[in-house]
Amino acid sequence: METIERAADRVLEETGTRFLDDPQTIDILKQAGGVATGDVVRLDGAELRRIIRRHAPAKFLLRGRNPARDTLVGGAGPPIFAPIYGAPNVVLDSGERVAGSRQIYGELVAAAHAAPGLTNTGQMICVMEDVPEDRRPLEMLLAHLSRSDKPFMGSIASPAAAEAVIDLTAAAVGRPASAGACNLLHLINATPPLTYWPNPLKCLRAIALKGEASMVSSYMMMGATSPVTVAGALIQGYAEVLAGLALAQLWRPGAPAVMGILAYPFDMRRMLPDFGDPASQLVQLYAAGLGRRLGVPVRGDGAITSAKIDDAQSGAEGGRVLSAAVGSGASFILHASGWLEQGRTVSFAKLRRDAAALAEFGHGKPADLPPLPLERDIEMEIRSRLSRP
Amino acid sequence: METIERAADRVLEETGTRFLDDPQTIDILKQAGGVATGDVVRLDGAELRRIIRRHAPAKFLLRGRNPARDTLVGGAGPPIFAPIYGAPNVVLDSGERVAGSRQIYGELVAAAHAAPGLTNTGQMICVMEDVPEDRRPLEMLLAHLSRSDKPFMGSIASPAAAEAVIDLTAAAVGRPASAGACNLLHLINATPPLTYWPNPLKCLRAIALKGEASMVSSYMMMGATSPVTVAGALIQGYAEVLAGLALAQLWRPGAPAVMGILAYPFDMRRMLPDFGDPASQLVQLYAAGLGRRLGVPVRGDGAITSAKIDDAQSGAEGGRVLSAAVGSGASFILHASGWLEQGRTVSFAKLRRDAAALAEFGHGKPADLPPLPLERDIEMEIRSRLSRP
Repeated sequence: METIERAADRVLEETGTRFLDDPQTIDILKQAGGVATGDVVRLDGAELRRIIRRHAPAKFLLRGRNPARDTLVGGAGPPIFAPIYGAPNVVLDSGERVAGSRQIYGELVAAAHAAPGLTNTGQMICVMEDVPEDRRPLEMLLAHLSRSDKPFMGSIASPAAAEAVIDLTAAAVGRPASAGACNLLHLINATPPLTYWPNPLKCLRAIALKGEASMVSSYMMMGATSPVTVAGALIQGYAEVLAGLALAQLWRPGAPAVMGILAYPFDMRRMLPDFGDPASQLVQLYAAGLGRRLGVPVRGDGAITSAKIDDAQSGAEGGRVLSAAVGSGASFILHASGWLEQGRTVSFAKLRRDAAALAEFGHGKPADLPPLPLERDIEMEIRSRLSRP
Repeated sequence: METIERAADRVLEETGTRFLDDPQTIDILKQAGGVATGDVVRLDGAELRRIIRRHAPAKFLLRGRNPARDTLVGGAGPPIFAPIYGAPNVVLDSGERVAGSRQIYGELVAAAHAAPGLTNTGQMICVMEDVPEDRRPLEMLLAHLSRSDKPFMGSIASPAAAEAVIDLTAAAVGRPASAGACNLLHLINATPPLTYWPNPLKCLRAIALKGEASMVSSYMMMGATSPVTVAGALIQGYAEVLAGLALAQLWRPGAPAVMGILAYPFDMRRMLPDFGDPASQLVQLYAAGLGRRLGVPVRGDGAITSAKIDDAQSGAEGGRVLSAAVGSGASFILHASGWLEQGRTVSFAKLRRDAAALAEFGHGKPADLPPLPLERDIEMEIRSRLSRP
């Protein structure tokens, strides 16, 4: 872990990170000691860790419209599971494959709500292809609020959309963000290698200033947008998320944040990432360790797969990725159900089937082994077994 | 971990373990402080742990006929993968399902030899239904020695068979067992709850006295042969394997041994174990921790499933179990390929397909995170990425 941190520190300090077209970000990083040359800022990794460790909460409450649905992100409880995020296509129960729509979106949220295994209804489960882009954030919000009372994720379509969804959700939940509690978690992606685009930077700022949560993620394709090795991907991804996580704390000390370092080998023949590859599981296990050292909750991926249908490949790839995420101690597991075809498709049947399996993962994270209940009663049961004739 | 150990200690001391029809075992346990009443011996768990920690090797070499195939059990290397063990039925590449036979056995060993993902050709990949039972150990040995030069597992058909296979294998390998190195690993099963049958006890003794390795396992069906809870299964299973592991060291201090605590929920409707259930993965994660505290290598299970064919269920169940085993840091993973139908069937196609995935698990165990190679080169690659136009 220290080797990764030291190597990432050298990358951050000697190479720097590119923050595209967002002078406010560059200004605040300079105030924190960064050295800017154009849009590339060279940063002190050890200082970024100090900022994060000092301010970022180790756990926070992510609330639902129904307080009984509130979930704790981080800490010893079970991981939170949210459905696939961002699928343009949908496989209906009839088997028909169609483009996402407003109506289907509502049905997907209802399906996620009905599944006990999902404790978060996510965001952009499918793309509403029949709704103009600027209307989608509020249409999705309406679906999440009207078809479910579970917590869900915020919009990152634009800073204005993020803010509007935050304010309306706070009104619906009836409890604005406070220390250690918020209503929405937002997916803030770095753009590997070592780059943040303007919209995620502006959204990160708007979200942090509202006291809402960001899941700062680096999603790498090993051999394409990152080095091909586990070590190289970890070093690059850690450098990227360290910058983003520290930024959130610079904008608002104490802003809830989750760390995600995800990396999948890029298949040069198919020009697609290779989900289920064991290298990605090793990245997840290290990432969780790096997150624990930072003191922030960690993201994992769920049953993701390259398979086009829910077959042996889909099961094996998804089972391995999910199990690695749960085993790593990840606190928030995205794409936990419904994912097919490199994430290009959400399937109603798979969403329900994956979620049924997730319902069994009701125990705490293995990294924080759960307490053993009823110790003496269990011993009595074992004794009675031996003494049977 | 301490809670499990303390509870198991009380079970061992207050309830005792049954050692059926093997006076030599009861005598040596009495010499080590055990209190016998008939075939039930009450033992001091702390003393058993002291014996194991003092004598059992943390790692040992399991050798093949070809020294280039030698594998280290325990330590920081990748886990060893062996195929399914004990299937009466075989699915051929034609799709036909037939009883195991001598000829098919040879072909299965050849398939396991040809698969780079398998580093051990195992034992009883299928049952040789066309060979008399007392001939099978030597026929299987002949297949493992003639169709492969990888390490494999020993016979536990009887103490005499175990000894014959050990002596013949030593002759073929050309290197008899020595401190920290042996030629065969044997599956020694407790019979939950809290019982050892005579044959495993006699085999364990014969094997230890030859300096060969035993994998002392408790394979529980939660709710049937063990308590239904994770905690209860762990307490019972740990008590069982602690007795067996200490016995091996009492027979021969330093005898190589692997610990296995496996538990699958028992489905009352189908009257079959439920493979892939997350409870079993939690048991595996705890078991690995208990093994680390004992200082012995730990067993895991591979792609096992309740599915009848290699479909989404097979993939998901197998993927989860395998990933939990690898993630737990298990050193020897049995049933790693070919398993279908609760282990009643081995499939050639699945054996090859599972093994192809295993070949990707070439890295070290996550519990002992592998060293990060070429640190500076990786940084240089990351740097060159940022500076691209």
